[in-house]
Amino acid sequence: MIEKYIRAAKRDKKADLVLKNASYIDVFTGKIRKGDIAVVGEKIVGTGEYAGKEEIDCSGLTVLPGYIDGHVHIESSQLSPEEFASLIVPRGTTTIIADPHEITNVCGMAGCEYIAKASKNLPLDVKIQLPSCVPATPFETSGATLNGKDIKKNIKNKYIFGLGEFMGYPGVISANRDTVKKLEAAHAAGKIIDGHAPAVYGYDLNAYLCGGISTDHECVTGKEIEEKISKGMYVHIRHGSSTQNLGNAKFVTKENMRRFILCTDDRHAADLKENGHIDDALRKIVANGLDPISAVTLATLNCAECYGLKWRGAIAPFYLADLVAVDNLDNFNAKYVIKNGKLVAKDGKPLFDTSKRYLPDSVLDTVHLKEMKAEDFVLTLKGTRAKAMTVLPGGVVTGCEIVDVESRNGDVVLENTDLLKLAVVERHKLTGNIGKGLFKGYGFKGGAMGITISHDSHNVILLGDDNESMARAANHLKQIGGGMVIVDKASGEIYSLTLDIGGLMSSRNADDLQRDSRALIERAHAMGVNREYQAFMSLAFLSLAVIPKLKLTDAGLFDVEKFAFTDINA
Amino acid sequence: MIEKYIRAAKRDKKADLVLKNASYIDVFTGKIRKGDIAVVGEKIVGTGEYAGKEEIDCSGLTVLPGYIDGHVHIESSQLSPEEFASLIVPRGTTTIIADPHEITNVCGMAGCEYIAKASKNLPLDVKIQLPSCVPATPFETSGATLNGKDIKKNIKNKYIFGLGEFMGYPGVISANRDTVKKLEAAHAAGKIIDGHAPAVYGYDLNAYLCGGISTDHECVTGKEIEEKISKGMYVHIRHGSSTQNLGNAKFVTKENMRRFILCTDDRHAADLKENGHIDDALRKIVANGLDPISAVTLATLNCAECYGLKWRGAIAPFYLADLVAVDNLDNFNAKYVIKNGKLVAKDGKPLFDTSKRYLPDSVLDTVHLKEMKAEDFVLTLKGTRAKAMTVLPGGVVTGCEIVDVESRNGDVVLENTDLLKLAVVERHKLTGNIGKGLFKGYGFKGGAMGITISHDSHNVILLGDDNESMARAANHLKQIGGGMVIVDKASGEIYSLTLDIGGLMSSRNADDLQRDSRALIERAHAMGVNREYQAFMSLAFLSLAVIPKLKLTDAGLFDVEKFAFTDINA
Repeated sequence: MIEKYIRAAKRDKKADLVLKNASYIDVFTGKIRKGDIAVVGEKIVGTGEYAGKEEIDCSGLTVLPGYIDGHVHIESSQLSPEEFASLIVPRGTTTIIADPHEITNVCGMAGCEYIAKASKNLPLDVKIQLPSCVPATPFETSGATLNGKDIKKNIKNKYIFGLGEFMGYPGVISANRDTVKKLEAAHAAGKIIDGHAPAVYGYDLNAYLCGGISTDHECVTGKEIEEKISKGMYVHIRHGSSTQNLGNAKFVTKENMRRFILCTDDRHAADLKENGHIDDALRKIVANGLDPISAVTLATLNCAECYGLKWRGAIAPFYLADLVAVDNLDNFNAKYVIKNGKLVAKDGKPLFDTSKRYLPDSVLDTVHLKEMKAEDFVLTLKGTRAKAMTVLPGGVVTGCEIVDVESRNGDVVLENTDLLKLAVVERHKLTGNIGKGLFKGYGFKGGAMGITISHDSHNVILLGDDNESMARAANHLKQIGGGMVIVDKASGEIYSLTLDIGGLMSSRNADDLQRDSRALIERAHAMGVNREYQAFMSLAFLSLAVIPKLKLTDAGLFDVEKFAFTDINA
Repeated sequence: MIEKYIRAAKRDKKADLVLKNASYIDVFTGKIRKGDIAVVGEKIVGTGEYAGKEEIDCSGLTVLPGYIDGHVHIESSQLSPEEFASLIVPRGTTTIIADPHEITNVCGMAGCEYIAKASKNLPLDVKIQLPSCVPATPFETSGATLNGKDIKKNIKNKYIFGLGEFMGYPGVISANRDTVKKLEAAHAAGKIIDGHAPAVYGYDLNAYLCGGISTDHECVTGKEIEEKISKGMYVHIRHGSSTQNLGNAKFVTKENMRRFILCTDDRHAADLKENGHIDDALRKIVANGLDPISAVTLATLNCAECYGLKWRGAIAPFYLADLVAVDNLDNFNAKYVIKNGKLVAKDGKPLFDTSKRYLPDSVLDTVHLKEMKAEDFVLTLKGTRAKAMTVLPGGVVTGCEIVDVESRNGDVVLENTDLLKLAVVERHKLTGNIGKGLFKGYGFKGGAMGITISHDSHNVILLGDDNESMARAANHLKQIGGGMVIVDKASGEIYSLTLDIGGLMSSRNADDLQRDSRALIERAHAMGVNREYQAFMSLAFLSLAVIPKLKLTDAGLFDVEKFAFTDINA
């Protein structure tokens, strides 16, 4: 192809595509320049005055390099990679660093491969990070385990780009043997390792970095950012649906600018649909005062440099022709999106077929449960005082409250209390594990709710005030292959939403998912769920045994501060 | 090793080496920080307060990352790689991107391998760029040819880091088939390509860049730099012995800073010894007004990023412990140099053995000539007017002057003129090629001078006013295996300096070379060479058929502006 590029660059032959009359951002010198941008095949071949076989008039528009999302779990959108692409590509994102941590916890390497294969023919480069921490903690039963040996074997795969966020930072800092094996395997394979080190400072941070870890997306304070950048990390500024740190953009200076990148981490379909993706992050950090050229550089060149994606993230000859033409640098509305030299989206609509789904059996029918019965949900307490979980609105941090309880026939009485039963039912290996607990203040009444998303092992989380309804909810989730469910005891009706891919994602389109999801959420609120909570997604973090304070896994109630299981009887 | 790094980082075990009480440059945030720098094995493991098995007190010193020379021909020092390292490592240079273009033109891949092997056990990382343009032009006979097929084969070698400066820019811009093959081979191997594109602008530059070329060290103007950086190139600021563009540092801004790097390109032993290497460049650009932190960043992190040298070029955990402790950021005097975690130089003196030389037969005895006779240097002209070369003082650009000539017995008469005979004798393949010309204004009288360095094919260049002396000079160069020679016709004496390695470099130490070199140069001046010229090195560029205006190769007189051979008869 080089000969073709050269001939077109010299204008001896017409370019395949020319973006005419563009203003474009030059991320190398931090300037806005004017000219035509000529494209041959998948490459930019020159800027200046060019004629093309195809031409797009970009008068009045500003052309930017396609955005790169430095860290994202596609699963969090609850969409298939195909549908995910159909939402983010028209927003201007052309490359993502994807860590299929969730589905790999459910399906093992088959989950990771599924994301890779489903993404393969999309107009979106999906760089697959091998999930490093499967399971995320040893205190639960996941669908798969990737130990040091497994990482060593799989990191060499061609389709694996690097090692995903090393959230097991205590294991790194303590030089846990299996952890070290994972890190060494990634280095031996010459692959980048993403980090995840919330509030890790000083000598602990030095130790963590000695694992050869390159990035962090968990920074909260300016001090933390300063230290992490100073010690060589790239810092992701995150624009997730719940976890957000766009405010960190205020710590960007001319001197440290090259070490910041953007990411979304976890972003739900509804957010992607309504607000956008990296474009939305740009809009907001520019509105908050970061100059737009720096902002765009964070989302493009910086991320490309961090991840060693050469010839990407800039508008210059031989660079990949991933381009987005926006209305202006305030609204970042994407008028045209070019991926690999092809126009793939216009006016926010994809120009590629998003109806096909790659759906291997390996990620379907992943809810493995024996037939559940009402008596499985009997909760026998020893005395009259017990520990109940509470959840802080809008957050994933839980509290522990000692509550007075009554029992009847060996089962806790919930009537006339603001308590509910919570159960985490293992759904991968038919162990029959059920962790049970009490949950206070959620507001639901008259049946049961359930969901097969529960970080990070994604067992079934059930909530209810009626054992029979909880059993019906579990059995229904098994029957539909995963998703969300509400059982209304009074009417006997079951309402549900199917997440057929690993019990995490829907194979349908975003609109259908959103419509059904909203209806189900509305029903949950109608049945009493406090509107301060995200009716289902707030449940999904109740088993995440790395975030304070009291959590419930299929193995039991867990005190995160003591980092040990704890008795429900207070 | 990761476990060891982590334990020391956490201070559970002592570090191997600690630089105590250092001020050090943090190139990531552009700040000077204070603390101890702890090292284990070849890595930095942390900054803070550390104890080490070995400790170096750096109170009052400033510690910098080891310097990286982004582009250098070791051969231009006229020293072996071992001796070269003994001069530059104590100055603080710990990594070089070396293009063995000169010796490869003489010895082919054996020359390239020699540089790699001779450099292997030095406390200096020598990244070998495969010379891309051997020969540099088709208008001369070189010792070797590396065509597209050869490049394709050799670029894959593990010891080859990238493809050396693509000086044949007309071939790139015209998409010459063999040139394209070379470029494609480098990309297929995933290796970086260095550039060399003097005064290439606009659509030609676009075309050149479509070869996938990353760097340029030939920029002269601010406009040229702006365009090249804007189009994605890294720009080397060069501190060579003759070619210098340190003044380009004034074009460094906060916005474009990350795209500048430093290099020396061609730097002679005497300069290295007396003035230094990258340290000297830093000293000078800081004296000229660039802030020292930016200057150091150019010489370290930027170069590492350009060449994809991860974990190098900064002082941070897991980074290579290549460090230089300097007195201050004005003089950049290197007090200590650490390479791969070991103290390798102190107070400007190497602490490593520099006496051993790797000297394979393949780079020795490279002057292949039949026995030359006086009659080989007879220059028969047709008329009374001829073209004579002139050389502009201090430069490599030559002129063409039409001169009146007399002939006697079929040979041009030089007595009572300021003309000399110039001859380029092919010395690689026994072709018997002799290019002959006239040279005006150099000032030498009474015999002959010769040298086996002549860019880029390194044939024998002879200059003289006596055929017999010229033949003796050539034969002597053959006998000593290459170097520089003066034949004094009056006394019959021969004075010479041996450059036994490829006829380009000495296997002796820098002091001996410098002493003998000075004596020989002094003798040349004593025999009349105008002191405006570098007596021998000015000759070495007279055959470089890519620099205007009139040049002489073994194939004849060459008009660079017409890009064709030309008749000496005017």
